[in-house]
Amino acid sequence: MSQVQRMSRLMVKTLRDDPADAETLSHKLLVRAGYVRRTSAGIWSWLPLGKKVLDNISRVVREEMDAIGAQEVLLPALLPREPYEASGRWNEYGDLLFRLKDRKGADYLLGPTHEEIFTQVVKDQCTSYKDLPVMLYQIQTKYRDEARPRSGVLRGREFQMKDSYSFDTTDEGLAESYALHRAAYQKIFARIGLDFRIVSAVSGAMGGSASEEFLAPAGAGEDTFVDCPSCDYAANTEAVTFVAPAVPVTEHGPVEELDTPDTPTIETLAAHLGVEASATLKNLLVKVDGEITAVGVPGDREVDLGKLGEHLAPAVVELVTADDFAGRPDLVRGYVGPQGLKIRYIADPRVAAGTAWITGANKPGTHARNVVVGRDFEVDEYLDVVVVEPGDPCPACGAGLKLDRAIEIGHIFQLGRKYADTFQLDVLGQQGKPVRVTMGSYGIGVSRAVAALAEQSADEQGLCWPAEIAPADVHVVAAGKALQTELALDVSEQLAAAGLRVLVDERPGVSPGVKFTDAELIGVPKILVAGRRSGEGVVELKDRRTGEREELTVAEAIARLTA
Amino acid sequence: MSQVQRMSRLMVKTLRDDPADAETLSHKLLVRAGYVRRTSAGIWSWLPLGKKVLDNISRVVREEMDAIGAQEVLLPALLPREPYEASGRWNEYGDLLFRLKDRKGADYLLGPTHEEIFTQVVKDQCTSYKDLPVMLYQIQTKYRDEARPRSGVLRGREFQMKDSYSFDTTDEGLAESYALHRAAYQKIFARIGLDFRIVSAVSGAMGGSASEEFLAPAGAGEDTFVDCPSCDYAANTEAVTFVAPAVPVTEHGPVEELDTPDTPTIETLAAHLGVEASATLKNLLVKVDGEITAVGVPGDREVDLGKLGEHLAPAVVELVTADDFAGRPDLVRGYVGPQGLKIRYIADPRVAAGTAWITGANKPGTHARNVVVGRDFEVDEYLDVVVVEPGDPCPACGAGLKLDRAIEIGHIFQLGRKYADTFQLDVLGQQGKPVRVTMGSYGIGVSRAVAALAEQSADEQGLCWPAEIAPADVHVVAAGKALQTELALDVSEQLAAAGLRVLVDERPGVSPGVKFTDAELIGVPKILVAGRRSGEGVVELKDRRTGEREELTVAEAIARLTA
Repeated sequence: MSQVQRMSRLMVKTLRDDPADAETLSHKLLVRAGYVRRTSAGIWSWLPLGKKVLDNISRVVREEMDAIGAQEVLLPALLPREPYEASGRWNEYGDLLFRLKDRKGADYLLGPTHEEIFTQVVKDQCTSYKDLPVMLYQIQTKYRDEARPRSGVLRGREFQMKDSYSFDTTDEGLAESYALHRAAYQKIFARIGLDFRIVSAVSGAMGGSASEEFLAPAGAGEDTFVDCPSCDYAANTEAVTFVAPAVPVTEHGPVEELDTPDTPTIETLAAHLGVEASATLKNLLVKVDGEITAVGVPGDREVDLGKLGEHLAPAVVELVTADDFAGRPDLVRGYVGPQGLKIRYIADPRVAAGTAWITGANKPGTHARNVVVGRDFEVDEYLDVVVVEPGDPCPACGAGLKLDRAIEIGHIFQLGRKYADTFQLDVLGQQGKPVRVTMGSYGIGVSRAVAALAEQSADEQGLCWPAEIAPADVHVVAAGKALQTELALDVSEQLAAAGLRVLVDERPGVSPGVKFTDAELIGVPKILVAGRRSGEGVVELKDRRTGEREELTVAEAIARLTA
Repeated sequence: MSQVQRMSRLMVKTLRDDPADAETLSHKLLVRAGYVRRTSAGIWSWLPLGKKVLDNISRVVREEMDAIGAQEVLLPALLPREPYEASGRWNEYGDLLFRLKDRKGADYLLGPTHEEIFTQVVKDQCTSYKDLPVMLYQIQTKYRDEARPRSGVLRGREFQMKDSYSFDTTDEGLAESYALHRAAYQKIFARIGLDFRIVSAVSGAMGGSASEEFLAPAGAGEDTFVDCPSCDYAANTEAVTFVAPAVPVTEHGPVEELDTPDTPTIETLAAHLGVEASATLKNLLVKVDGEITAVGVPGDREVDLGKLGEHLAPAVVELVTADDFAGRPDLVRGYVGPQGLKIRYIADPRVAAGTAWITGANKPGTHARNVVVGRDFEVDEYLDVVVVEPGDPCPACGAGLKLDRAIEIGHIFQLGRKYADTFQLDVLGQQGKPVRVTMGSYGIGVSRAVAALAEQSADEQGLCWPAEIAPADVHVVAAGKALQTELALDVSEQLAAAGLRVLVDERPGVSPGVKFTDAELIGVPKILVAGRRSGEGVVELKDRRTGEREELTVAEAIARLTA
């Protein structure tokens, strides 16, 4: 079958202006180049060019999932409430979940992910350890009722996702299924031409390897991550750990009180004393399950309440209010210091044993200097709680870290037995006794990957796709009249016969300038122009990314493209 | 990449017993053979084998749609209310539509079909006659909240459909797009191995060619259609037309009143007079937009109120009630006759000019004989309104028609300008003036086709797929121990290397009997058994459909299969 797609017959209407509501580059360009069209807030239609890119990504995903022995299935998107009620997610998802009732009043939801249903399928289909391990995947439409759907297909309310689930009888088996997915994801993202980093997604209780995110660095991304310029360390900002440096043993003078009127903030204090904020110790008061607790960090750093919350979960962390100071004369607002304090004291590793600080003296208008950790007060618990900043030391090599924005395009997760416990998913073990199954879940945002690739590869002229996922291999432009059109069509047929996917712009009555502009905007990697020298059988071959142009005979051009 | 799928690693659990709730053959077998699993009422999960069949059908559909120049897109399933409100379908669909609200309280629906959204897309993308014709299609998940979802995937509430839409500027263009679809559908159904008939779906106002259904004859079907055993005529029962035979000119005696007490029904009348019901004329009273109207049909035939309603649409047809007789002494219940009647008289073509009837005399307990059409009364309008019965004459050749049950697997429809009018879809015409676009819509039930194929091809042993859509080309069975398993795997690799899709049953500890039974149930067209004579390199090749078996050397078997 011919692989030549004629522009005159393709439903694509390019726009010269950015859509009014578009903020990100991918949103602007995918709309302007006719790849997608907005149907409703966060709900998109994929037009012919967009569908091709989506299909190309899906094909790569399928090949690599099949290669690790995962089996493709297709589960419904419209799901009954009961299994999500059993797992707790019917409520936990809150407003993110699209809920509906059928004609009989029964509750349903539109699936955001399918752990519950896959667990039920496997419980039904697998009964013995011999049936495991099993890895199942689907490429399917997913739903999340985002509060602020934006950025085009980057964060939609209806989107395409590859989700897969592994089922094993042992922890080692789960680790193996996880490793297979991790390797497959690396291949997939490399093949589709995405620049990506793998970062630990959660520190603390879950263990570093239990969950990793695949991030595509891009300015339009909603995630911030840290990236080491010297080694391959990369992490979610919430997962960065700080290794406290060994503090040289130093003699510090005795604690000395300072009269510091009207200095309840670090800024006012540092200005008053003429010292760096980093010389001061900031003591943030929070309530942990209702109990007032102090968190000490250097004065120039911010406490990351998200990190703190994750470290202390399931305890609930709240900020203190004015009411909490009532009846607590020991807590002097703005002048709290850890020395002599009768409450739990958590500190950042930077507040290391042997270091000396300027901090509150627990008296109004008064601070103290030479307050030494381990001499004048003890830290009850060290936790990584500060907001990561550029230049913070890499936990792997010590070099200064960079902070970058990225798009989350994949997530792999060792779930363990949470869902198997909920649904009592057991198989008969080798010893003849029931064994509880352990699960992994793994996702790739397929429609989001289109936007991420557009973000990473586009330039001022338009989209600029990596070869494997471009909607065509070559964009042939007939830049002229009958002679050029004839040559363009002839070359297109020859290229198609050689197995290439060809888009040919033979639109009558459209100027070469418009065709060139459209070709740049649409972003097929190679552009072949039948122009001025068509009569001599000479065409121009242009690389969309580098802009390099070369005049070649038709035979040379075809040889070059099919090489 | 190897195409060998090992049964030991395939998630498939066959069942020996039919599921309790299954009524149709396809439902029973698709569940028993592990192709699908019920997730909720009318909502199904496609397991690995089922997904392969679904994909094979989708592939054929894509190839044939691409071949006629249709372009693939993917529109959302979650759709805003407004366009469906504009077209009237938000209400017309009634309980069939799944409706829901998003977090802001805005109304959405799950798309049953997409005429509205495609019209909007084309309005956005196409502005000139040069942009048309355009044909767009998608293979997508659709939703209908059926009152009684049943028969497995034959009638689900979530299902896979190929829907396409054509956009033309002229009626001739629409006819051409329609013809292209019709031809593509014939190819698709032939390629996937389906026995099908094309029937006119609606007679009357829409015109015979405006809508046709593709029906797959099957006992489990919910549609009844008429089929001519002598010519290729086939039609929806509602679309059958009756050609009135020429009535020989005969002298009839004068009208004669008959004393027929207590004979208000045809049955009592025929018994009283000792005549066939077909000699009597039944006059059904209905209200057409509130006006009482009589419908005359031979006494042995029933009026098809659906047909009558379609003929008279948009007028509303209702049955008369006792109240309607109040103050109408001219209408004598049970004894109405057309002669001298002062109301509109509609008749079936069988009530032809010159025919004589026994009918009511418009007096209680009295009938009349020799009431002649055209002499004693006039018919205001002839309409095909009787329920078709087996043996009715074929409108094409006159032979006696058969009535059969079938599954509707495709529907093609010349919509005309209904949606274009709603959304004011115009393009700039050749004359520089706006031209209203005319549309066609075309659907194939992809998941339903799986069930239809299962219904048509299965036998007592299980499923029996046509080659093009089977989940594999060959099912290799290792019927024995190590020797047989080794040979089975070796042959499988050779077959895969030759391009065949191979399923090999090498499950350790599973008896040959169970493997044979599973192979028959799963229904791959060719079964190759490495059994007793494996040591000599001799295998058995069995045709799943015919049951024919042959002993062949491995080389012969491979040559046979790859021929």
